[in-house]
Amino acid sequence: MTPSIRIPPAEFAQRAQALQARLAERKLGAAVLFDAHYILYYTGFAFIPTERPVGLVVTAQGKSALFVPRLEAEHAKAQARVDEVADYPEYPGTQHPMTRFKALLDELGLDGPLGADQDGYPWLFGYRGPSLSELSGRPPAPLRAEIEDQMAIKSANEVALLRESAKWANLAHTLLQRYTAVGRTETEVAQRASDEATRAMLDAIGPVYRAQSAWFSGAAAGYRGQIGRNAAIPHALANNLTFRAGDVLVTGATAPVWGYHAELERTMVVGPPGDAQRRLFGHMLAMQDLALDALGPGRPCSAVDEAVLGYVKRHKLEPHWRHHTGHAIGLRYHEGPFLDRGDATEMLPGMVFTVEPGLYAPELGGFRHSDTAAITDDGAEPLTFYPRDLDSLTLPA
Amino acid sequence: MTPSIRIPPAEFAQRAQALQARLAERKLGAAVLFDAHYILYYTGFAFIPTERPVGLVVTAQGKSALFVPRLEAEHAKAQARVDEVADYPEYPGTQHPMTRFKALLDELGLDGPLGADQDGYPWLFGYRGPSLSELSGRPPAPLRAEIEDQMAIKSANEVALLRESAKWANLAHTLLQRYTAVGRTETEVAQRASDEATRAMLDAIGPVYRAQSAWFSGAAAGYRGQIGRNAAIPHALANNLTFRAGDVLVTGATAPVWGYHAELERTMVVGPPGDAQRRLFGHMLAMQDLALDALGPGRPCSAVDEAVLGYVKRHKLEPHWRHHTGHAIGLRYHEGPFLDRGDATEMLPGMVFTVEPGLYAPELGGFRHSDTAAITDDGAEPLTFYPRDLDSLTLPA
Repeated sequence: MTPSIRIPPAEFAQRAQALQARLAERKLGAAVLFDAHYILYYTGFAFIPTERPVGLVVTAQGKSALFVPRLEAEHAKAQARVDEVADYPEYPGTQHPMTRFKALLDELGLDGPLGADQDGYPWLFGYRGPSLSELSGRPPAPLRAEIEDQMAIKSANEVALLRESAKWANLAHTLLQRYTAVGRTETEVAQRASDEATRAMLDAIGPVYRAQSAWFSGAAAGYRGQIGRNAAIPHALANNLTFRAGDVLVTGATAPVWGYHAELERTMVVGPPGDAQRRLFGHMLAMQDLALDALGPGRPCSAVDEAVLGYVKRHKLEPHWRHHTGHAIGLRYHEGPFLDRGDATEMLPGMVFTVEPGLYAPELGGFRHSDTAAITDDGAEPLTFYPRDLDSLTLPA
Repeated sequence: MTPSIRIPPAEFAQRAQALQARLAERKLGAAVLFDAHYILYYTGFAFIPTERPVGLVVTAQGKSALFVPRLEAEHAKAQARVDEVADYPEYPGTQHPMTRFKALLDELGLDGPLGADQDGYPWLFGYRGPSLSELSGRPPAPLRAEIEDQMAIKSANEVALLRESAKWANLAHTLLQRYTAVGRTETEVAQRASDEATRAMLDAIGPVYRAQSAWFSGAAAGYRGQIGRNAAIPHALANNLTFRAGDVLVTGATAPVWGYHAELERTMVVGPPGDAQRRLFGHMLAMQDLALDALGPGRPCSAVDEAVLGYVKRHKLEPHWRHHTGHAIGLRYHEGPFLDRGDATEMLPGMVFTVEPGLYAPELGGFRHSDTAAITDDGAEPLTFYPRDLDSLTLPA
């Protein structure tokens, strides 16, 4: 019996078949992929990229081979849905792993040029090595755009994993709000909320669960330094601020579920809120309402951002604007397409977006909610469900 | 007054000057860098790379400009040691950021071709955009190897940060060992040790401290699933195992300090250890002793690995071998050069390495200590200092 909270084997096969079909269309002999998320997507094999190269080959005939260092071999054989796992002893080793990788490509007997997500393994963590161009004598055909397009349309199983992620993000966020109080530090509150939510999640679904995330090992909620004045810098670095009366707080919560991340963010006020705080909070909420209403199949992503920008202009909020309305999300916590006035991509059923217009004022802080929503056949389904109104998000001072 | 626990401004200037000197030697007009760790190294600006491109330009005349999205502008102006911060509204936006970046390059008036760490901003998190080749009409000269070579030699200030990191890793590890007990789960023990160590570190050095790490927000110690039989898979994914009598445990601990990471790992046994456990532990310790003794300036990195491999062969331990002896470490938790039989790089004063030969057996688990050591003028200085002997690392069953 297969546990229900994961991608079934048949879906991995379908994903690889779709890639294979693209290779046939473009008359390519094989796809070579080095990106860890692409490899996770096509094979179910999760790994943290290091200086030891890992590569996936999918041929136009549908044969697949995963190339890993010796120390990942057992792990890869247990997890990766591929026909073959080939390993090399070590990097750098006495023979460069890419020499062995070239031999693997030759053994697979490709009939057509190579496509690839990038021209060789990236120079990460001290890795140095030849490009695919250097190995094979010609530059590979770029495949990244097609793969990103494929990954942008989530299946029902993927949306279910994002829905599951949203539940545990909600738990972490509930605890974060419960434990936040004047005089406590962001570190202790974020640790307590994240720890308890993670343990509850593992106790609830541990046997059928893996995080498979490069960024989070469990449910997580915190502030990333977005407290009071610091909140005006959207991606401020956290360093243990103490909560004070009057602070505007911007939270963030997620929980990786088989690699999938939903995003939940809320603006909270250590109350009672002042007039200026009420005003920007109200505008932000109206902007998010407009954006959520604008989601739906058949329209361009840009329409959602334009609805928000129209509101910003009408209410003369331009000085408080810093970023577009949202981004797709899934195996990566940011993905394309983007809810951005410059992105004309058509919204399609199965796309999943964060909806997070924000307003920022140096003297007040940041105002941003983020909800995750899936495009459906006739509109959109919110996957996150935390309260959004100011009363619910006002903490006692 | 400048706090002592950080890289002083003059050192950032020296780093950029060294890069500038390489540009002059190679008759290049400017270096264009996209790698977040290179940008941190040359400017002190820490950021998490996303789909919004960030780029650093250092000209042969020594002028520097950092290119960031609008939402990072305040943060960049406050932190980056550069002459100019230029920003663009948003990605993708109505004008592609790389068009604006090309204009910035033109404004800087370069007299010579471009060098770069990579041919354009990488296609991360859904980013799509033109390469530098496409923007400038010719491929940039590769600079990555020179930058890696420069970063491999740590200054006294960098070694001091790694020494500071080792202290807090030691605290986290001490707590991890103290709290590990039969019947507890790896998640609760790792959370408690990491949380308490992080809070102690922030209470001790918080005002003069930033993590500046893409991977760790504070001191951390844990098992990454390397418990009992799972320990035989070196980079196993953690999923909340419960400690049992007879388990062999492989730990990992670090603490990022202004971006620098020391590495501390230990093999522990939920005792009393059996004969087979004693045997592999003893061999592993002898291998690490050999490796530590082989560290020193003027010898090739490969000599350290060969000393270990010689021992492995003499004692017929080949079936238990999985990986080389170690790697350099600093702003990235793995860096080059490598203590690997295939790496002929000469060890030089200021290089910092992990020393972590390992032995693995499916039925027993993994046996690996990792210590971090700096090459000095006449030998090596260990930066980590946790007990290494089996008695000290045997837990009551």
